[in-house]
Amino acid sequence: MDVKLVERVKDIGRLKSVSALLDWDQETYMPAGGVAARAEQYALIETLAHQKLVSEETRTLLERAEGTVDADDFVAETIVRETRRSYDRAAKLPAELVREIAHTSSLAKDAWAKARAESRFADLSPWLTKLIDLKKQVAERIGYAAEPYDALMDEFEPGATAANVDPVFRELREKTVPLLNRVMTARPGPDPAILDRHYPRDRQEKICRRMAEAIGFDFHSGREDVSVHPFCMTIGGPGDVRITTRYLKNFLPAALFGTLHECGHALYEQGLPKEHVFTPMAEAASLGIHESQSRMWENLVGRSRAFWKYHYAHVESLFPEALRDESLDSFHGAINAVRPSFIRVEADELTYNLHIILRFELERAMIRGDLRVGDIPAAWNEKFTRMFGITPENDAQGCLQDIHWSMGAFGYFPTYTLGNLYAAQFFAQARQDIHGLDDRIAANDHAALLGWLRERIHRHGKRFRPGELVQRVTAKPLSIEAFVGYITKKVEAIYSI
Amino acid sequence: MDVKLVERVKDIGRLKSVSALLDWDQETYMPAGGVAARAEQYALIETLAHQKLVSEETRTLLERAEGTVDADDFVAETIVRETRRSYDRAAKLPAELVREIAHTSSLAKDAWAKARAESRFADLSPWLTKLIDLKKQVAERIGYAAEPYDALMDEFEPGATAANVDPVFRELREKTVPLLNRVMTARPGPDPAILDRHYPRDRQEKICRRMAEAIGFDFHSGREDVSVHPFCMTIGGPGDVRITTRYLKNFLPAALFGTLHECGHALYEQGLPKEHVFTPMAEAASLGIHESQSRMWENLVGRSRAFWKYHYAHVESLFPEALRDESLDSFHGAINAVRPSFIRVEADELTYNLHIILRFELERAMIRGDLRVGDIPAAWNEKFTRMFGITPENDAQGCLQDIHWSMGAFGYFPTYTLGNLYAAQFFAQARQDIHGLDDRIAANDHAALLGWLRERIHRHGKRFRPGELVQRVTAKPLSIEAFVGYITKKVEAIYSI
Repeated sequence: MDVKLVERVKDIGRLKSVSALLDWDQETYMPAGGVAARAEQYALIETLAHQKLVSEETRTLLERAEGTVDADDFVAETIVRETRRSYDRAAKLPAELVREIAHTSSLAKDAWAKARAESRFADLSPWLTKLIDLKKQVAERIGYAAEPYDALMDEFEPGATAANVDPVFRELREKTVPLLNRVMTARPGPDPAILDRHYPRDRQEKICRRMAEAIGFDFHSGREDVSVHPFCMTIGGPGDVRITTRYLKNFLPAALFGTLHECGHALYEQGLPKEHVFTPMAEAASLGIHESQSRMWENLVGRSRAFWKYHYAHVESLFPEALRDESLDSFHGAINAVRPSFIRVEADELTYNLHIILRFELERAMIRGDLRVGDIPAAWNEKFTRMFGITPENDAQGCLQDIHWSMGAFGYFPTYTLGNLYAAQFFAQARQDIHGLDDRIAANDHAALLGWLRERIHRHGKRFRPGELVQRVTAKPLSIEAFVGYITKKVEAIYSI
Repeated sequence: MDVKLVERVKDIGRLKSVSALLDWDQETYMPAGGVAARAEQYALIETLAHQKLVSEETRTLLERAEGTVDADDFVAETIVRETRRSYDRAAKLPAELVREIAHTSSLAKDAWAKARAESRFADLSPWLTKLIDLKKQVAERIGYAAEPYDALMDEFEPGATAANVDPVFRELREKTVPLLNRVMTARPGPDPAILDRHYPRDRQEKICRRMAEAIGFDFHSGREDVSVHPFCMTIGGPGDVRITTRYLKNFLPAALFGTLHECGHALYEQGLPKEHVFTPMAEAASLGIHESQSRMWENLVGRSRAFWKYHYAHVESLFPEALRDESLDSFHGAINAVRPSFIRVEADELTYNLHIILRFELERAMIRGDLRVGDIPAAWNEKFTRMFGITPENDAQGCLQDIHWSMGAFGYFPTYTLGNLYAAQFFAQARQDIHGLDDRIAANDHAALLGWLRERIHRHGKRFRPGELVQRVTAKPLSIEAFVGYITKKVEAIYSI
């Protein structure tokens, strides 16, 4: 493998990691007065990374490597393939188009924040019209087989297309809605309001730290800080992976499940092969696969009865007043309560995917040209009512709630539900492969599961595309079966239906 | 002024500021596992900054600007002059020589740490021999008027030469030694041991924060963290200046005067003209001028009776046990106690300069070729005994104590004493210009002094060279007069001599 190409790829990776540090610092410790200088530093580093990627020299080195790479050398094959992919995506887009998208979306994000605050979709719609037009241009430049949306989704989930995601999502919706109706009929179930009591922050920090350590987050190769929006960021390869949490003293789940979620992302990043740091071999397979790791630890492990069988005693001892009259059962019920709600990020495990399917269908239609921007609010509310049985009172509760479209991130939403489906399918396989998985979780022993994920998923980096990885790990293509089996069993138990 | 040149200069400044963030993060929050990746990130950013500086394009833009710059446009004049200076210093040194110095000094720093731990100068001497040879090559490449040492010192203190520093230091030594002898004869004076009692860390943090705010450190444009070695670092121009402190629970002065010292540096950086961020107009005039700001706030303000007249009550209330039988007078005496000691960084205000003068004389002789490396320990001990009346028991207490020479930083030490002299001379002028300065300090009102420094020194950035700046601010060239007057008066009062 050509040393010069690898060194060039690593330099690009190093620049992106420096960008990540600039971003992390801004979200955590940077004083307010640093914001203007930070924007300049960030723009410079991003520009240098872009220039290095699309340069003549990268192209020449790539072409030479493509002619000589040994088919058995999967490291070289992965690095060349993924660098080609990045190069093509970057080189196909004229600098002017990239600049216009960056400029427009930065203004559109502001417009979105104001539009949402006042619930006035009309204030955002000219920006959306512009962004959809720009992203269609991107799709045409990048190229696609069936429809332009595919070119956009491919950025986040390589190999995914609307035509193969759509039937999966339809089937999932068909299984979800009747189950949701059964829950609604069976109400009242557990009371989630017990999580809104007073939970002092310093005690939340204790349980979050303990859970993070329990599932295997390596504090030697990472750290946890506080930020407004929780995130996981890799600053220096698998040896330096940082998460953030936010603590709401009247809403315990934010910190608990936020920490488990970000730890799930971090365990993936810490498990990537260190020896290939700054190359695609040490990068995650896709956003969907990434989300499968965060959702597995957050939900399949973190909202399981087995997990709380161990940890509930600690929570109870930390918050004796808030949980005075509660039990493991009522707590476990509360963290798994199901109900239709307007806001995606507050949704339970069952209804969450409906929120995503709705967005996928709408954004696909927008990019196809089948849905005019002006018609989005009506289309949203109509679909929402049909799926959830409730109607948003205003657009802030509806089509204005998410930032994604105003950032031009069309094709991103499906990765959330793909993550949920991958998570369930991986976990079902792990359950087959690991003897007594539930008992281990109940004994706070997560080493076998983490080891299994490391071996089957983490260590491969970008070697396999998501579809190929799922097939390798579970001997099946992606399907809704595992998720539907898991969620049905759980919901039936909690609601005694 | 050529926009392209300014933008290029700023890009170099931005890259250096990104380097600073990588460094700051490593000293404060980076997890241990990040160290290998950090070294790679750092090397890349430094290389990019160097390449941008010595490039053909920078040379062409500089030459064009030099032909056209308007003599009245001091901003353009400063940027062009200082960029030329940086360009010449960088371009005159072959990449091979730069690399060899970086490599040698990185190994020599390790050798120094071990040699100091075992007090074996012989283990360091081959490295010093090599470094002296390399730095002589640097001096020959850079060029000098009188002696090679000048080329090295000029890096840290533009315009300073051994020939003009030497008589100042001699005179200072001649005034210091008799005063030290008078103190030694008058002993016992105040008891500094009261500062070694138990001072809980959380309370030290309170007083440090209060002092920092009192003297005007702007927490909107900066922050304070903890690190092993305290420092001040500018991360994003005047809007993002960060200091660190270390807290020793059995040695109060470390945090108190460390904070005031680093705040002094930070006030300078926060006072540089924001509109010229990332150019030499928003950089400090020199290391010596920088040190004048830190030493002024640490010593001339921070060890004054007036300052503690205000702050002592707070300290007393924070540490009622440690200071039970103490008073403003005994505390003020303790923080100003004078005695010969072996270690520079622990020295009092009077003897501190003797430590520097000794190092200056020895390193000048080394670079001249008048002192062989093997003879350093004997020369050190002989000079030390003559100056201080005590003899180091081993080289760890003597010529091995400082890291500077093993980093190849010859010509750096003088800036410490120049800083002390500048500080006293500036402060004497401020006392003339600001009505009732002592009363203001005693009333915890530092706005007039800070405003004076901003107006006279900070806002000029690198516009004036140190010598020119001193002349402008005080209407006199640098002299020892102000410092000797200040220290004599203070020591006589404290020791009643």
